[in-house]
Amino acid sequence: MDTAPPLSPTDRSTVRRGSARSRTDRAELYAVLDAGLVGHLGVVLGGAPVVLPTGYGRHGDTLYLHGSTGAATLRAAGAGAPVCFTVTHVDGVVYARSAFHHSMNYRCAVVHGTARVVTGADERLLGLQVLTEHLAPGSWAATRQPDRKELAATALLALDLTEASVKVRTGPPGEDERDLAAPVWAGVLPVRTVLGEPEPDPLLPEGVAVPDRVRGRRLR
Amino acid sequence: MDTAPPLSPTDRSTVRRGSARSRTDRAELYAVLDAGLVGHLGVVLGGAPVVLPTGYGRHGDTLYLHGSTGAATLRAAGAGAPVCFTVTHVDGVVYARSAFHHSMNYRCAVVHGTARVVTGADERLLGLQVLTEHLAPGSWAATRQPDRKELAATALLALDLTEASVKVRTGPPGEDERDLAAPVWAGVLPVRTVLGEPEPDPLLPEGVAVPDRVRGRRLR
Repeated sequence: MDTAPPLSPTDRSTVRRGSARSRTDRAELYAVLDAGLVGHLGVVLGGAPVVLPTGYGRHGDTLYLHGSTGAATLRAAGAGAPVCFTVTHVDGVVYARSAFHHSMNYRCAVVHGTARVVTGADERLLGLQVLTEHLAPGSWAATRQPDRKELAATALLALDLTEASVKVRTGPPGEDERDLAAPVWAGVLPVRTVLGEPEPDPLLPEGVAVPDRVRGRRLR
Repeated sequence: MDTAPPLSPTDRSTVRRGSARSRTDRAELYAVLDAGLVGHLGVVLGGAPVVLPTGYGRHGDTLYLHGSTGAATLRAAGAGAPVCFTVTHVDGVVYARSAFHHSMNYRCAVVHGTARVVTGADERLLGLQVLTEHLAPGSWAATRQPDRKELAATALLALDLTEASVKVRTGPPGEDERDLAAPVWAGVLPVRTVLGEPEPDPLLPEGVAVPDRVRGRRLR
């Protein structure tokens, strides 16, 4: 049962452009975040924005982000700079009868907030487990868990999902009435993210088969 | 012939983390940008970063971005606020024998700069053509071009590709020597973006076939 509260819009998390595409169901936020492999983290460094792809994982209403302890963006975010974290899925190219009405079908989640450096040993382990399982479901239990040195080399941030917005576009083009009779094809060319055939590490000892967590993996 | 100058690193466009993954060939920048459908535009609004998916197209060393004239991020960028524009392709999930060495194969281009509002009628038309052709190759010539009202409703920005960086990860996991003998599968699960079967607009008059620009489209 989804008993989560709806997305509560603040000024900056209120969708202004194309508000018909805005979604306020928290379950939709979860769905967009859970379906992504990478997000884009924005931080202000020296007055200018820096946007970098960043791995993440969700645990309830907490988003865990991680990277090297040496990354300037993560250091800034960990020092209390405001961040924006955006996950976008392109679902289709929308072909219209006019250049103007060409568009894209997509799902996009935008999270605003201030990240918190995760310092407690238990939550650090939880966060890394969540991140690993998001990237590679089943890998946490199947592989060697991080030792003390590896833990120390990983910057782990937590971002609350309180202030977030979701925008989704689906369906055929919105066209001008005047163009509808034009003999020009219009519609949607679907765009999908798919998984290919697993490529074993050349260093793998003989006889280690591709496990079902890899072979049977499906993207959400 | 690629006679473009190499990427000239400034302080913020110098790849610091994982510099072995950095590329300095301008042709690689073009390739990563040209292969994307959407980028993430970062702008500072009220001291905080805002990162939104944004359509784009490249013409030589100019990136054209567009959106509604009402979008706050585009207004800020057009008013001279520094921007960061990032295009990322996820190419694979890298499974390792340890949780720590799990990774992602990807190509990522990051462009820093200050955008310029395109005002000249000729360049505005060029920019919209570049954007349309990037999103939907062949559509500019095949569809109705923008009229005066549509042109006025579109904010068009130009971003110079002078200050940019490219980072690419390929190949199997980097592992600790100590883990190599573990009977744990390691390797790469490829991730690909593919196009599906065209879905005609229900309002299409009978007999308008799917054109080759749609049916025969290949992603770069």
